[in-house]
Amino acid sequence: MEISYLNGKYLPNNEVNISPDDRGFLFADGVYEAIRWYGNFFYDIDCHLTRLKRSLNEIRMSWPEADTLPAIAADLIKLNSLEDHQAIIYFELTRGVARRFHAFPSPPVNPTVYAYARSFRPDINLISNGIRTILRKDIRWMRCDIKTIALLPNVLSFQEARDNDCHECIFSRDGIITECCHSNVFFVLDGVLRTHPESELILSGITRKSVVRIAHEAGVTLKEEAIRQDQLTAITEAFVTNTSFEIGPVISIDGIKIGDGMPGPVTRLLREKFDAEIRALKG
Amino acid sequence: MEISYLNGKYLPNNEVNISPDDRGFLFADGVYEAIRWYGNFFYDIDCHLTRLKRSLNEIRMSWPEADTLPAIAADLIKLNSLEDHQAIIYFELTRGVARRFHAFPSPPVNPTVYAYARSFRPDINLISNGIRTILRKDIRWMRCDIKTIALLPNVLSFQEARDNDCHECIFSRDGIITECCHSNVFFVLDGVLRTHPESELILSGITRKSVVRIAHEAGVTLKEEAIRQDQLTAITEAFVTNTSFEIGPVISIDGIKIGDGMPGPVTRLLREKFDAEIRALKG
Repeated sequence: MEISYLNGKYLPNNEVNISPDDRGFLFADGVYEAIRWYGNFFYDIDCHLTRLKRSLNEIRMSWPEADTLPAIAADLIKLNSLEDHQAIIYFELTRGVARRFHAFPSPPVNPTVYAYARSFRPDINLISNGIRTILRKDIRWMRCDIKTIALLPNVLSFQEARDNDCHECIFSRDGIITECCHSNVFFVLDGVLRTHPESELILSGITRKSVVRIAHEAGVTLKEEAIRQDQLTAITEAFVTNTSFEIGPVISIDGIKIGDGMPGPVTRLLREKFDAEIRALKG
Repeated sequence: MEISYLNGKYLPNNEVNISPDDRGFLFADGVYEAIRWYGNFFYDIDCHLTRLKRSLNEIRMSWPEADTLPAIAADLIKLNSLEDHQAIIYFELTRGVARRFHAFPSPPVNPTVYAYARSFRPDINLISNGIRTILRKDIRWMRCDIKTIALLPNVLSFQEARDNDCHECIFSRDGIITECCHSNVFFVLDGVLRTHPESELILSGITRKSVVRIAHEAGVTLKEEAIRQDQLTAITEAFVTNTSFEIGPVISIDGIKIGDGMPGPVTRLLREKFDAEIRALKG
C-alpha cells in the first residue's frame, strides 16, 4: 500500500482526497519538484528545496514549513520501504482550497502540500543508446523558469513526440533553441558545448547545473549560449538533462541523425563523470 | 448542502473527492466552461457546449457523453434549488486519473467530469459605474483560444489588478491589445468599435460573439481588428465582455481615465440592447 503525504499527514494514496475547490485543480495555481532517491541518498535535495522556494516566491505563495521537505521525503522513503531502491519523490504545492475566484483567497488559506514516493527504474536502453526527438515551436508562456503545474503545453508536445516514436520534444522560440518539454538540452557545435543560458525562457535544471559544473571540471569548453535552430544541421552531438535521464544522448531530431546516430564522445565523457559522482555519493 | 456532479453521480460538494493522480491536479490537463443561468434559462448553452467540444478536440480529449451537459446543468439547478435565482454552472473536464507521466494515459482512461452550480449575484455597481483596469504584457502561451484550466498567468495578473485596486487586467502582446485575463475587450477608436479578431491569441468569448451581433443589429460600426497599445491614448470608450460582467464599462487603464471616466454612449447603447434581450428571453 503506497503511503503519501497530504498537509501534515501520511496516509494510503487511495485515501488522499483533493478538494474540487483546490486551486491546483481549478487554476493550475501551484508548483512542484521531483527529487531523485538513489537508494541511500537524495540527489541535490538542497537545490530542489531552493528552487521550490524560488518558484513559490515567484507565484507569491508561501510555505512556512518548507524546511521540513527533506524530512518528509525521508519519511516517505521509509514508509514505502524504498530505502534500498531507486525512487522519485514528488512534491506539489497549491494555493489551497477556496471557492472558485481568480484572485488569491482572502483571507489567505493554507497551501495544499502533497507528496509521494514511487520506485523508479531508469531506462538503461535509452540512456545507453540515446533518444529520438522532435523539434517544435515553443508556444509556452514567458515564465518557463517557474516550475509550475500548468504543464498542458508540455503534455501535448511530449505526446506528439511519442506519436512520432520519439522520447522528447525540443523547443524553438523565435528561431532559438530553448529547452525540451521536460529536460534541458545541450549541443556540441564547432567543438564547443552549448546550452541556453538561465533566463525566464527555460527551467533552471538541477542536472543542468551539475553538468555545467562537471563539464568545467573535465576541461570541456562550455558556453551558456543558445544555438539557433538553423545551426542544428551543424551540431555533432546533443543530449538532454533532467532528474530521470540524468544525461540522455540525443541521436536524432525529426528523423535526422546527429553525427553517426550514436552517443558522441563529449556526451559519453560527461556521462562517465556523472556516474562516477553518483557512485562516490553512494559510498 | 451544495450538490455537485462528478462522473455520473450527484453528491454533496464536500464528498466530491479528486484523486491526487488526477491529470487536472498534476498537469492542468483539462478544459472548462462557465455557463450563466438567468433564473429560468441558460444563456447560449449550445455555444458553450460547442466551445467545450472544440477545446476538448484541440487538446485531444474526448467526452462521448458531451451532449448530456445541458441535462446535467438543469439537474444541478434543480438539486440546488436555484430555479428562481441567478447562478453559474461550472464544468471542468480533465484527462482522468493515472500515475504521473506526461504522455496521455495508455490505455486511455475515462475523463474526470466535474460540475457545480452556485448562485451568482452580478455586481450592479461595477456594471453601472464601470471598472478600473491595468495594462500588462500578455505572457500567456500561444493557444489562448483553448479554454484550459492552465490559468496560473491569468490568476497572477488578476491578482495584480486587485492589488492596484482594479477589476481587470488588459493584455498587450507585441504592442497589440489582445484581451483581458478573464474577459474580451472592446474599444471605441475614431468612432469605430474595435476588438481583436478571433485567433489563437484570444478566447472566443460567448458574450463577445453576442456583442458583435448586437452591435451589427444596432448599426454600430464594428471592426474585428485589434488596436495597438500606442492607440490607447486615442480611445474614447472601452468595455469588457464575459459571462459575469456581460458588458463591463472600462473607465480607466493604469490610472488614466478614458473619456470623462464614465461609461460611454456606445457602451450604454449595447448594454441596453443586451439587457433587453435578456428580458425578452426571461419572458
